[in-house]
Amino acid sequence: MANAARMSRDLPSVAELGSALRSGRASARELARRSLDAIAARDAALGAFVAVDAEGAMAAAAAADAELAAGTDRGPLHGIPVGVKDLIDVAGLPVTMGSAHFAGHVAAEDAACVRRLREAGAVIVGKTATHEFAYGPTGDRSLQGPARNPWDPARMAGGSSSGSAVAVAAGMVPVAVGTDTGGSVRIPAALCGVAGFKPAAGTVADAGVFPLAQSLDHVGLLATTAEDCLTAYLAIGSPPPGRRAGRASRARIGWVAPSSRRPAAEAVAAVAERALPAPPEPVEPPLDELRDDFVAIQSSEAYAIHADRVADRPDRYDPEVLDRLKAAARVPGWRYVRAMAARDRHRARLDALFERFDLLASPTVGVTAPLLGERVVAVDGAEHPVRDTLLAFTSPWNVVGHPALSIPAGTVSGLPVGLQLVCPPGRERLLFDVAAVVAHRLGASTPTP
Amino acid sequence: MANAARMSRDLPSVAELGSALRSGRASARELARRSLDAIAARDAALGAFVAVDAEGAMAAAAAADAELAAGTDRGPLHGIPVGVKDLIDVAGLPVTMGSAHFAGHVAAEDAACVRRLREAGAVIVGKTATHEFAYGPTGDRSLQGPARNPWDPARMAGGSSSGSAVAVAAGMVPVAVGTDTGGSVRIPAALCGVAGFKPAAGTVADAGVFPLAQSLDHVGLLATTAEDCLTAYLAIGSPPPGRRAGRASRARIGWVAPSSRRPAAEAVAAVAERALPAPPEPVEPPLDELRDDFVAIQSSEAYAIHADRVADRPDRYDPEVLDRLKAAARVPGWRYVRAMAARDRHRARLDALFERFDLLASPTVGVTAPLLGERVVAVDGAEHPVRDTLLAFTSPWNVVGHPALSIPAGTVSGLPVGLQLVCPPGRERLLFDVAAVVAHRLGASTPTP
Repeated sequence: MANAARMSRDLPSVAELGSALRSGRASARELARRSLDAIAARDAALGAFVAVDAEGAMAAAAAADAELAAGTDRGPLHGIPVGVKDLIDVAGLPVTMGSAHFAGHVAAEDAACVRRLREAGAVIVGKTATHEFAYGPTGDRSLQGPARNPWDPARMAGGSSSGSAVAVAAGMVPVAVGTDTGGSVRIPAALCGVAGFKPAAGTVADAGVFPLAQSLDHVGLLATTAEDCLTAYLAIGSPPPGRRAGRASRARIGWVAPSSRRPAAEAVAAVAERALPAPPEPVEPPLDELRDDFVAIQSSEAYAIHADRVADRPDRYDPEVLDRLKAAARVPGWRYVRAMAARDRHRARLDALFERFDLLASPTVGVTAPLLGERVVAVDGAEHPVRDTLLAFTSPWNVVGHPALSIPAGTVSGLPVGLQLVCPPGRERLLFDVAAVVAHRLGASTPTP
Repeated sequence: MANAARMSRDLPSVAELGSALRSGRASARELARRSLDAIAARDAALGAFVAVDAEGAMAAAAAADAELAAGTDRGPLHGIPVGVKDLIDVAGLPVTMGSAHFAGHVAAEDAACVRRLREAGAVIVGKTATHEFAYGPTGDRSLQGPARNPWDPARMAGGSSSGSAVAVAAGMVPVAVGTDTGGSVRIPAALCGVAGFKPAAGTVADAGVFPLAQSLDHVGLLATTAEDCLTAYLAIGSPPPGRRAGRASRARIGWVAPSSRRPAAEAVAAVAERALPAPPEPVEPPLDELRDDFVAIQSSEAYAIHADRVADRPDRYDPEVLDRLKAAARVPGWRYVRAMAARDRHRARLDALFERFDLLASPTVGVTAPLLGERVVAVDGAEHPVRDTLLAFTSPWNVVGHPALSIPAGTVSGLPVGLQLVCPPGRERLLFDVAAVVAHRLGASTPTP
């Protein structure tokens, strides 16, 4: 890629923007204007935003400036432009879920997390693209067309929070809100070379977020750095009480190696593993069982939400999404019951594993961004279904609800590779400390598109 | 029936037995002996018990006598013979679930409710028959053969707690423990002319009870009178906090009339309705929806428990039970998800209804005991599947978890009819007060077999 040599520090962090705001080097209006200009300049080619609220953003930015001038500082997100996934209600803005079923639909109220964003002083710039109803990790089936990867617009952004990842990676907003039911924050973050955080289950309120599968859904954050994800998370969530954690440099990290059920190209896995501060020890958590449980839970809960729409107006769905829903309808109830019951058993096994290891690490995704529309990917010569491949490392953590973070780990053939770090709830501080060590080690070697 | 003219007071209540014990007119050993004698005399023809523990019962009775003599009184169940459904673990006794899968199986420990029974001084006489794995309201498919109705041994006892109802109705024990997933306590109680109580969900611990469908399962009680059900319930359960309740004589009672989805013979419904202290007002709770939700939940949860057994050794099931399990396997997950989600909505609707009414009443079952093996019953000339007919009035209350009591209401053509009374959790005191008024009104007109 011609522009792959640009460095991540080209995209200012929330902390840098905040310091510019507070020192008078920039105003919230200037940040909002820059964000709107970047969207205007690049988004026709990328499709990150499905609705832009220039007027609302400028008004919010002006209010943020006035507050700061009057001495009211709402904290690190004050005056920061933010994108919100088009599955999340923002009062007065369209919310289409990427679907013809909701074409022209406008939200009456803010979702709970959007209310928290506004209370934190964030400036909402617009709505970012989602795979239709968030039901797909490819990010290329949506009422508004595919979102495109800024590293190569012929490639997927990943999904379902495709627009949020593209918007951050392309420098349109420093932070975006997404949702993650099986990897929908982490997968596009990895494929687009930004940071994506799925918090611990239940720590961000989901009121006003259209559900995909309620036992698995998480509101999550995307940003240029892990630290910015944490900043945004602290603004909209209620983290679990922290346990005492050791030093990041001495963290015991377990490595979830690729396998036949979770394929990864050797080069991709190597980039992710080498990004770690120290060679990790191989571990074997029950990811294959969790994968099967994930499918049973997601299918049953998703179809429960869509059954009436499928019966009444199947034509309004993207054909691939409709096919997936029809397959989801066939998962038997007893499989769902077993999968739900298995979660506690899996958590207990993971608790034991997390006695031995502070964190688990893996590639976020075993491949770099596939071409748009591609449904079979080659992994070192062997062919695999694209969806299974994209979801293999991320979806198990939605079943058990553990915090999981994807951070940029480098590139393979000019395309980003993500490193996934997972911790038990309450150990988030160490997770982000290790992410900071990784980012520091990679330093200027991490390119952006 | 030749013996249908015998009166219910022929079967002494727990309170009467307790007073005989404490006045020295009887010993616990005598009560146990009488119970064992009644079983010896009648059970070959009825099949209420699948295992009798004469030695254990006599030892427990002797201990109860010794304690009373020494001044230790464990309360109303002290020295009272009790039967326990063969789905519930009693240490050292067989527990077969009525299935060849568990032929010869002996429980290592007492179930939680059995432990409570022993702490209350009860004398456990043996294990009472269950429909195989409690999966059937007819009580006639079991490893040990059908349980027979004491009013007419050619007829069903009802199920699945068939043996517990027969044991009480035939005077073998004054109290028996059963389980109720869709009516398995109340249905046999109604068909055998005894009282049966399904407590509020979650108020009796289910450890050591083989599950049928965990979201619907309730441990329940059968006895000659409602008051004795309450006594036994208070010994093994933790009732919800009571709300202030009005006087029984002024209770506002809503009448759940029969319908096409819940057929009842006119004569049966009339006997049940006339047993009420005052003419009730017709109401229409969402029973049809609850029935559908019941089927989705029961099917999915039951098959989740049996899937491996069905795969490995289908031949060990009764063919009818196996067919039901195979049908249960086909219920889709999304239906289960919807049914589980609907429960809160239904509870809210019922809360509103229970603002207007203190209790709801209906026939417990719309027909009197069908013949053994009968699978289609005629209800005033129209044919209905026997299982649907038996379960129609009882199973909705397992979905929402409300306390539900069946009490004898009279007979039609010499066979018992049950009146079902339902209240919101916390209003049990009024429920039993109204039951006492009904029993008082019916008085000597209530026959026993």
